[in-house]
Amino acid sequence: MNHKMVVKTTGMLLLAEAGLLLLPLAVSLIYRESCFYALLITIGVAVVLGGGAMLAGRNADRTIYSREGFAITGLSWLLLSAVGALPFFISREIPSYVDAFFETVSGFTTTGASILRDVEAMSRGLLFWRSFTHWVGGMGVLVFLMAMTKNISERSIHIMRAEMPGPIVDKITPRTKDTAKIFYAIYLSLTFAEVALLLCGGMPLYEALVHTFGTAGTGGFGVFRDSIASYSPYLQWVIGCFMLVFGVNFNVYYLLLMRRFRSVLKSGELWTYLGIAAGSTAVVAFNIRHLYPAASEGIRTAFFQVSSIMTTTGFATADFDTWPTLSKTTLLMLMFIGACAGSTGGGIKVSRVVIYVKGIRREIQKLLRPRAVNRLRLEGKTVDESVVRGQNAYLAVYVLSFVLFFFLLSFDRFDIETNLSAAAACFNNIGPGFAAVGPACCYADYSVFSKLVLSAAMLMGRLEIFPILLILIPGTWRRRGR
Amino acid sequence: MNHKMVVKTTGMLLLAEAGLLLLPLAVSLIYRESCFYALLITIGVAVVLGGGAMLAGRNADRTIYSREGFAITGLSWLLLSAVGALPFFISREIPSYVDAFFETVSGFTTTGASILRDVEAMSRGLLFWRSFTHWVGGMGVLVFLMAMTKNISERSIHIMRAEMPGPIVDKITPRTKDTAKIFYAIYLSLTFAEVALLLCGGMPLYEALVHTFGTAGTGGFGVFRDSIASYSPYLQWVIGCFMLVFGVNFNVYYLLLMRRFRSVLKSGELWTYLGIAAGSTAVVAFNIRHLYPAASEGIRTAFFQVSSIMTTTGFATADFDTWPTLSKTTLLMLMFIGACAGSTGGGIKVSRVVIYVKGIRREIQKLLRPRAVNRLRLEGKTVDESVVRGQNAYLAVYVLSFVLFFFLLSFDRFDIETNLSAAAACFNNIGPGFAAVGPACCYADYSVFSKLVLSAAMLMGRLEIFPILLILIPGTWRRRGR
Repeated sequence: MNHKMVVKTTGMLLLAEAGLLLLPLAVSLIYRESCFYALLITIGVAVVLGGGAMLAGRNADRTIYSREGFAITGLSWLLLSAVGALPFFISREIPSYVDAFFETVSGFTTTGASILRDVEAMSRGLLFWRSFTHWVGGMGVLVFLMAMTKNISERSIHIMRAEMPGPIVDKITPRTKDTAKIFYAIYLSLTFAEVALLLCGGMPLYEALVHTFGTAGTGGFGVFRDSIASYSPYLQWVIGCFMLVFGVNFNVYYLLLMRRFRSVLKSGELWTYLGIAAGSTAVVAFNIRHLYPAASEGIRTAFFQVSSIMTTTGFATADFDTWPTLSKTTLLMLMFIGACAGSTGGGIKVSRVVIYVKGIRREIQKLLRPRAVNRLRLEGKTVDESVVRGQNAYLAVYVLSFVLFFFLLSFDRFDIETNLSAAAACFNNIGPGFAAVGPACCYADYSVFSKLVLSAAMLMGRLEIFPILLILIPGTWRRRGR
Repeated sequence: MNHKMVVKTTGMLLLAEAGLLLLPLAVSLIYRESCFYALLITIGVAVVLGGGAMLAGRNADRTIYSREGFAITGLSWLLLSAVGALPFFISREIPSYVDAFFETVSGFTTTGASILRDVEAMSRGLLFWRSFTHWVGGMGVLVFLMAMTKNISERSIHIMRAEMPGPIVDKITPRTKDTAKIFYAIYLSLTFAEVALLLCGGMPLYEALVHTFGTAGTGGFGVFRDSIASYSPYLQWVIGCFMLVFGVNFNVYYLLLMRRFRSVLKSGELWTYLGIAAGSTAVVAFNIRHLYPAASEGIRTAFFQVSSIMTTTGFATADFDTWPTLSKTTLLMLMFIGACAGSTGGGIKVSRVVIYVKGIRREIQKLLRPRAVNRLRLEGKTVDESVVRGQNAYLAVYVLSFVLFFFLLSFDRFDIETNLSAAAACFNNIGPGFAAVGPACCYADYSVFSKLVLSAAMLMGRLEIFPILLILIPGTWRRRGR
C-alpha cells in the first residue's frame, strides 16, 4: 500500500471541498444568514487538514494500483462527509453530529434521505450546500479532481474505476484526465440546460439551482416539505424528464457528440432502461387511475415517480406510500434495478441486470448442450470471464450487505416494511421509502445506531461496496511485497 | 430429447403414486371414512394413466443426459401433484381443484402452506395422504423410484442431480441405485426413530405418523389448528430436534455409518448450519423473553421456531407473527438461508451461502493481489470453476424468480409484508409467513391466479428452479442433433 499517495490525495480532496464550500458561503452572504460563520469555520478546518495532509504526503510515489484506488476512494468519501457535516453541526441547525453526518452522507451519495422534520426551517445557505453535495457526489469528487489537476498519473484510472458506478469503466479517450473532463463537460451542460428550462417555467433562480443539483446528481433533496408537488405540471415534466436523462450512461452522450448514432441505437442497456421505465409507468398509471380522475395528471404523477425512483433520485409529487400494493411493489423493484452504469444514479444498475439475465440464459444453454462454448456479450463486445466472475461476486456481496443492513435495522422500533424500504432506499441511494420512512416522513426517529448503519449503507451503495469493504480490511493497508 | 424415456419414466412414477395411495386408502378403511372412494378412483386414474404411459414408452432408448434428467424431474413433479390432488377434489373436502392442487403441491414440495381454514374438519384418510406427500417429496420421488427399480441405467444420476437439492450431488457409492438405497435406508431409520420417541411421549400412533411425515420431509402439515402448540414440552423438543436432524446433509449420516468421524468433524456446512441455528435461537430467545416469563419455555419456543423455519418445515408452537421485528426479521432471513444441501429442507442451502461468501472473499483477495490464483474449496475439496459459475447463475435466477413471484402477488389485495413473506415462505418451502399468511391464518384468501403463482414458486423452490424452467423452454424438447 502506497500510504503517502493515499494521504496526499485525500489532502487534495479536502482542499477541493474547501473550494466547493465557497459557493454556499456566497449564498449565505447574499441572504445575510448566520450560517456564514459555520461555513467559514468549516472552510478553515478543511484547509488546515487538507494542507497538512498535502505536506505529509509530498514526494509521494505516484504509483497507484487497484487497491490504492479503492482505499483512496473509500477514505475520501468518509472524510468528505465528516467535514461536510460540520456547517450543519456548528450552526446548530442540526444539533446532533450524527444527524448532520447522516444528512451529509445522504447528500454526497446522492441518496436524499433526510432526518429533517421541517426542511423549510433551515437557512438558505445550508440548504444550498446540502443540495450542492448531490451535484458534487453525482459525477464523483475524485473524477472532478482528476479533471482539474495537472500532471495526474495515468494510473489514476484505478481511482476512476473505484468511484464510477457500473461493471465496466472504460476510458473513452486515451488519457484518463480527458475522459474525466469530457464527463464533467457533459454534466455541466446538462445542468445548465435544466436550470434554463426551470427558469423559463417561472422557478426562482435559487430554487432552480437547488432542484437542478438534486436532479443532476439523482439525489432528491429539495427545499419544501412536499418536495416537488406544489410546482406546475410544466416544471414537474422538466424535472421528471431530466431525472431520466441523468440516469443514462454518460458514454451515450459522448457517442452522440461523436455522431456515432448507430452505436447508440444498438445500446442494449439504454433501451432496456427506457423500456423498464415505460413499462413501469404504464403499470403504475393504470394502477393509480382511480386516485387521479384526470388522465394527464395520473400519467404525469406515475411517470414522475417511476423516473424518480428508478434513477434513484427520490423527488416526490405524491405520497406514494398511500398507493396500492402493485404500485408500491413496482417502485420497490425499481429501487433495486436502479439506473444505467456510468450515470449519476444508483441501484444494481441496468447493465448488471442484463449481465445476470444473460448469465442465466447461458447456464440454461449449458444444461441443454453441455459441450457448447458460450461467451457473454454486452453492447456488442464479449465480456471477459473475470468481469463476469466479478459481477457475480458483486451480486453475492450486494445481497449479503442488504440482508445485513435490514437485519441491523430490526433492532430498532419499526416494522418490517419500514426497515425493508429504509434499507432499500438508503443502500440504493433513493431516499424516501415506505411507511414510517415514506415521502411524507423522515429518518429522524431511527436510533443513532440505525442512522450509522444507514450511513454505511448509503456509502456502500454509492461506491458499490468494495471501496468501503476494503478500507475495513487490514490486508489492504499492508505494504506491498510483504 | 429422448421423448420415449420421459414418457416411460413418468408412467412408472404414476404407478408408484398409485402404490403410495394404498396407505391412506388403508387409513380411510380403518376409520371407515367416505374419502375411501375418492382415493380408490384416484388409484384407478393413476394406474390407467401410468400403465398407458409405460406402454407408450416401451422399448425406450435408456440413454439419459442432463436435459432428460431435468425434463423428467420437472414433468414428474407436475403430474404427481395434478393426480395427487384428485382425492381432495373428488371427495369435495376441498371443493376447488386449484385449491386441491395448491395443497398437494405444498405437500410434495414439503412446503406446508395450506388453503384449509379448518384443518380439523378434514377426514383422517385425506390428512394422512396430505402429510404422507411430505414424506415422499422430502427425499424425492424419483430417488425413491431409483432405489426400488431393477436394471436402472447408470445415467439416471442425471435425474438424481435434478431432484436432489444442493450445488453438488455426488454418488456416495459407485452405483447410483445403491446411493439411492442408502439415502432411503437412513431416511426410513430416522423416521422410525422419531415415531418411536413420539409414541413414548404419549402421542397416539396416527398423530405420531402424521407429524413424523411432516418433520422428516421438513414439510409442516399438521392436523390441528394450532399446529404443535398443544403438545407437551417433551413432544415439542422431540419434533424440534428432529427437524434439525432432517435438515442435515444426509452424506453426514452416511459418513457416520462408515465411521469416518474426522470427515464429519471437518464439515464446514454442518457446523455453519448448527452455528446459525444456535445464534438465531439465542437472538430470538433474548428478544421474546418478555413474552415467556419462564426461561425454559422461551428457549424452547425460540429453538422450536428457529429449527422449524431454518429447516423450512413450518410447524409452529406460537404465533410468531406477533413477535417483535427483530425476531421476525431473523426468521425471515432463515427462510432464505434454509437447510443443508442433500437434506430434505429447502431454501438457498447453507453450502451455497458458504460458496457465495467464499466467492466474495476470493474477489477481495483478487482486488488486493490481482495476479494471485485462488481456488474455491468446500469440504476440503477444490470446487470446479464450472460449479462456481453454475452456483452464481443459480443466485441470479433465484433472486429474479423471487422478485417475479413477489411482483405477481402484488396484483392481489394484500400488503407488501404479506406478499413478501408469502413469496418467501412458498419459494423456500416453509409454509407459514407473516401478517395475512401468518401461522394463525392461511392462503385461502389469495386469488386463483396468486395460488397458481405460489404453486409454481413451491415447485421451483423444491426442484431448484431449473427443472421447471427447462420444461417451459421449447429447446428442451427438440430432438438431439438438430
